[in-house]
Amino acid sequence: MGIITIIGSGVMGSAMSFPACDNSHTVRLVGTMLDRDIISHAKQTGFHLTLERKLPDSVEYYQLEELDRALAHTDLIISGVSSFGVDWFNNDILPLLPKDKTILSVTKGLIGNPDGSVISFPKYYSLSMPGMDFCAIGGPCTSYELADRDNTFVCFCGNNMISLLAAKKLLETTYYHISLTTDMEGLECVAAIKNAYALAVSLAIGLSLKKDETLHYNSQAALFTQSVLEMKRLLTLFGLKDDNLAFGVGDLYVTVFGGRTRKIGTLLGMGKSFDAALNELHGVTLESIAIIGRIGKAFLTCVDNGICSKQLFPLLLHIYNIITNDEPVNIPWKGFG
Amino acid sequence: MGIITIIGSGVMGSAMSFPACDNSHTVRLVGTMLDRDIISHAKQTGFHLTLERKLPDSVEYYQLEELDRALAHTDLIISGVSSFGVDWFNNDILPLLPKDKTILSVTKGLIGNPDGSVISFPKYYSLSMPGMDFCAIGGPCTSYELADRDNTFVCFCGNNMISLLAAKKLLETTYYHISLTTDMEGLECVAAIKNAYALAVSLAIGLSLKKDETLHYNSQAALFTQSVLEMKRLLTLFGLKDDNLAFGVGDLYVTVFGGRTRKIGTLLGMGKSFDAALNELHGVTLESIAIIGRIGKAFLTCVDNGICSKQLFPLLLHIYNIITNDEPVNIPWKGFG
Repeated sequence: MGIITIIGSGVMGSAMSFPACDNSHTVRLVGTMLDRDIISHAKQTGFHLTLERKLPDSVEYYQLEELDRALAHTDLIISGVSSFGVDWFNNDILPLLPKDKTILSVTKGLIGNPDGSVISFPKYYSLSMPGMDFCAIGGPCTSYELADRDNTFVCFCGNNMISLLAAKKLLETTYYHISLTTDMEGLECVAAIKNAYALAVSLAIGLSLKKDETLHYNSQAALFTQSVLEMKRLLTLFGLKDDNLAFGVGDLYVTVFGGRTRKIGTLLGMGKSFDAALNELHGVTLESIAIIGRIGKAFLTCVDNGICSKQLFPLLLHIYNIITNDEPVNIPWKGFG
Repeated sequence: MGIITIIGSGVMGSAMSFPACDNSHTVRLVGTMLDRDIISHAKQTGFHLTLERKLPDSVEYYQLEELDRALAHTDLIISGVSSFGVDWFNNDILPLLPKDKTILSVTKGLIGNPDGSVISFPKYYSLSMPGMDFCAIGGPCTSYELADRDNTFVCFCGNNMISLLAAKKLLETTYYHISLTTDMEGLECVAAIKNAYALAVSLAIGLSLKKDETLHYNSQAALFTQSVLEMKRLLTLFGLKDDNLAFGVGDLYVTVFGGRTRKIGTLLGMGKSFDAALNELHGVTLESIAIIGRIGKAFLTCVDNGICSKQLFPLLLHIYNIITNDEPVNIPWKGFG
């Protein structure tokens, strides 16, 4: 059996210990400087404070200063940092990692370039560390349900099919199902933008509740349809293939059903201002908000450069204006299609 | 204002009276021979027995033998028959209709040809009545929520953009949003096959409930992802474009959230045999079951003819075997991707 080192003990990184341990690997879970309490509590009790589940008994726990020890003879490194930890991981951690090991990233997001193009986190890392082997995970997977061993279907992407096959062999279980692709930018793009559109679909939930306190699905499905149309168009705009769009669509489905993105979309749909909605989430910084900002900016740069028309992305434009210009929710239905 | 004649007073046909009446058209709702009670009850009370809503006050009601009167000076004919009424509509009703009016069909389904190809209902009608103008509606729209005036985003398809624009002008409202396409076969194909895949996604609901009486979304999203992959492949297999796949995906979303297809998928996922599950639905014939049979046969004919591989459609093959060969539910996860 192998050794798998997970750096970042947030909910998703930690949930990866379930398939890894079920395959009888040694799992070393390393907290970042923000994870001190999670690691020390789990070390004592086996219980993960934010995942709210007991982790497998065999998980070994490490604080960040023990990283060296956690990396000894490792077979696979999983990066479990959130999108807000990507620069830290890039600048402070990458230089410490063995150069010949695959890094598998669970982080979903994109880097927006000033010219309106976007790149994936694995590509961003490889610009810092050319020659290292970066892979990533896309597709619908909430950490809580992976920890509950619910059947889960993800896609691993990377440049090197040999390392993808090796990662799949290490992590595939009876409930964790893995497809593989070398279309890294396409998969990572949909994995990121689905967070933006999950907020958009959730607006319908709030609008329904405001109207008659009932959940309606026609309007959610209307926004879901437009989201899929725009996600496909964004891939084209960024020069990417849409072979893996289905993983983004499935991911959109699961993201609409839980968590803080649904919550903030619902609050906005109910008529709260963006600031008031954020307040109800106690100021937690949301990946969906960050990605709306990045994608919105990239798209508007393309509009400014005459590369695309605003009319192709009415929903993106609306959610961008909601979060940056405090525009009230007023779905641009007549621009759909 | 115009005159709109709706033939077939099932839930979807009748719900079309809401946008039509809100646009101040004269609406004539004609029952089939199966709708006698619906029409006579609604005529007396204004209440629709199966839609379980009051219809707009201005709707005029006609029994089938009054069809002639209902068609006088009409501007648009909407066919509201279910997929099980398509042959009757084709053989008995089409010859009675004025030849110069657009027929807009709300019926979702496909005709399977012996050679493994499929055709849409509008195409089927036009083989009987060449020269008549057939259009159809695709996209996510449940009748109940259209009747509740929930925002709804559909797509009208047809061969003639002029008549599509005219139909849109008659029916578009502040809550009923209409996109247009001349890709009739592509839109109608996804409108039909989404019923098959809605049953497939619902299996996960039953499997979750059986496991721990909790709704899990990773597994639903896994099946949703594979469904989108296979829907796209089916379009390719049938030689169709995937420009309107998003409308099928949105339709899949809304179909998973309600109605009898979700119910039977859930019962099957919980371990009921197909017959036992059907019994719990009191023998109601389901469009999703019919379409699984048709699409499954078309696909297997293609396999027999060496046109495609079984491995590309593991989920379709499984649901086909569940309903035709009483195969127990055992999701072919490892074939996904």
